This record gives sequence, structure tokens and C-alpha cells, in this order.
Amino acid sequence: MDYPKSFTRLKSSFGLYQGIGDKTAERLSLYTIQKMSTEQVKEFAASLVAAKESIHPCPACGMLTDQEMCQVCRDEDRTSTLIVIESTNEAIAFEKTGTYDGRYFVLSGLISPLNGIGAQDINIPALESFIAAHKTREVILALSGSIPGEMTASYLKNILKAKGLKVYRIGHGLPAGAEIEYADETTLSQALEGKREL
Amino acid sequence: MDYPKSFTRLKSSFGLYQGIGDKTAERLSLYTIQKMSTEQVKEFAASLVAAKESIHPCPACGMLTDQEMCQVCRDEDRTSTLIVIESTNEAIAFEKTGTYDGRYFVLSGLISPLNGIGAQDINIPALESFIAAHKTREVILALSGSIPGEMTASYLKNILKAKGLKVYRIGHGLPAGAEIEYADETTLSQALEGKREL
Repeated sequence: MDYPKSFTRLKSSFGLYQGIGDKTAERLSLYTIQKMSTEQVKEFAASLVAAKESIHPCPACGMLTDQEMCQVCRDEDRTSTLIVIESTNEAIAFEKTGTYDGRYFVLSGLISPLNGIGAQDINIPALESFIAAHKTREVILALSGSIPGEMTASYLKNILKAKGLKVYRIGHGLPAGAEIEYADETTLSQALEGKREL
Repeated sequence: MDYPKSFTRLKSSFGLYQGIGDKTAERLSLYTIQKMSTEQVKEFAASLVAAKESIHPCPACGMLTDQEMCQVCRDEDRTSTLIVIESTNEAIAFEKTGTYDGRYFVLSGLISPLNGIGAQDINIPALESFIAAHKTREVILALSGSIPGEMTASYLKNILKAKGLKVYRIGHGLPAGAEIEYADETTLSQALEGKREL
């Protein structure tokens, strides 16, 4: 005796997610069948497909959007300051501070030799095109304090300074080892105020 | 600026699950969009609906099944011994030991006065009908060592002994406080061998 086939099939789909092991996939599948209404399950299924089909990275800055270009790239009133981040949720966190009116650029990865990711793999030409298109003169690197974050920041600093840009590193207020997306708004505001030139 | 609407919609669906908080729902939604293929997402969506629509509790014993009756209830070669459990995954764990050839009955809950669940709420008449239909003479209670598990076992023992049934409690081999579904097959085999009459 075993679970019905459609149970095993659902469990396999949950198991595709990073951080969802066998037991968790089973628990979530049971929850789907035993605790959720048919309506909720159908809505979940529809929202999966809708999100996957409508959301993509902005071709200019890399932020997730369901429009041709993201909201910030379409906003002509933004200053030419640029914050370089690792993912869209960090831009949303900075927007919530209400103290920043520049642009964002989402790197497509971080330099990490241990994982075989070099400077050529994180699409730096796209960042350079963005800077040229927006006449950016000031770049704030808001990367995590991990080793890949540090290596990428250091690499970008050299490239961008060589182009005559002012390069800052977000710093003041962000606790050591913390992730940007979990920081509160005050901490992020302070981190912006306390930026230091590299 | 905020996430696209279809992102927030997907995140809300993930957030319906017990144990999935706001940050995890966001992480799973991002993973769906950024790491999974369109094919995988469509398969996940289809498997959600298929599982929800095809799986239901067996009308006789309460085990999850996609058939009219579950596989064990349809099996005429099973002995009249009955194991009473809390959920289908425990029956699957017992089946894997290969040392049990009786039947199962899944309680629809455990007695838990703190949560307002009394003996009248866990569908004991269904258990009594099952016992009558299968001429059960021996019942093994395989409930967890939690307070509701203990209370339910104690209540069922009195009811079943009053009917002249032999009532056992699974015991030997199961570590204190452990969940049945996480126990290995040897431990579960020993727990069956070491059953003691109440």
C-alpha cells in the first residue's frame, strides 16, 4: 500500500523547491488535500501559472515586473543615482524607506569562484549599458556582507571608478552578517545616509 | 513601487499553508518565477488540482485514497486485527515494516479538551461500525504519546474492552515523544511485537 499516485505527483512538485525536503513536501501535500478548499487550491494553481507567465526581469535593470519595463525604469523623475542590488525584494525594501529617489540595477549573480561564477558570468555589460543610458554619476553598492558580496563589490568598485564614477558602499547601520531584505526601514535609511566613498 | 500583482497573488496562496510565513512565501514565489521552468510550474499547478479532486478519505476506514474504497479495505486477505492511527502516513509506515497484515482505521481527530474536542467529535461510531463489519477481535492503538493521544487511547480502551475486544497499545521500541511517522521500520516492527494488553 502506498499513497495514491496523484498524491505522490503533488509531493514531487513541492519537493522541487529549495528548502522543502521529503517530510515537508508530504506535510504540504496533506494540508492541500485535507485543510484547503477546492476553491483555494484552484486559485493557488491559477496563481502559479499566472505569475510564471506574466513576471519577468525588466530588460533594462533586471527587476521583476509584469510590464514591458519596470515601474522605476519608466519613471522619468528618478535621479541618476544608482543602487546595485542582488534581487528585487531589496529594491522594494529601499523604496519603503521613502528616502531614496534614484534607480536600481539587479545583478544577475555574485562573483563566487567556489561555485565557478566569475566576473564574466554576472552580466556586467548590462550594468555598463544602464549607466551609460542614464548618465549615472553615483553608484551605491548594496550587496550582502558574504564573501561573494564582498568580492563582487570590490570588482565593481574598480570597474566603475575607472569610468570616473563616484562609488559608494552601503554600510552604516547594517548589522554584520544580516541580509538587506530583513533590515527595518530606519536601519536602511541610516545605511543610505552613512554611505562611504570607496 | 511594489511587486507585480500576480506575484502578491502567488505569495498569498503560499501563505495559506500552516508553517509558511511571509518571508517563506516570498522566497517560494521568487523560486517559482526565477528557478523553475514553465513546464514545472504548469505540472505543479495541474498536480494541485488533480490531487485535490481525486483524493478523499476512504468512507470505511478514513485512509486517503483515489479509489471508491482504499486498497486495504478492498483486500479480502487482511486479518481482522485493527490498528487505530491518526493519519494515512502512519499506515504507510506500518505497511513498510512488512510484518503486519491487518487493517487500519484513521481517527478523524484526537480528544483534546483544551481545543474543545471531545469524544463526540472524533467519529467513534464510524470506528464501531468498522469493527462490527470486520468482526474485529483485536485492536492495537497506535496513537502518539502526546496528551491528546493518551486521552484518546484511554477513552477508546474503555469503550472497546466493554465490547469484549482485546485492546493493545503499541509501545515497545517507540522513543518517548517521537512521532510514529518518523520512526524507522525496525523500531516500528519492535513496537508491534512488544504490544502489551491494556
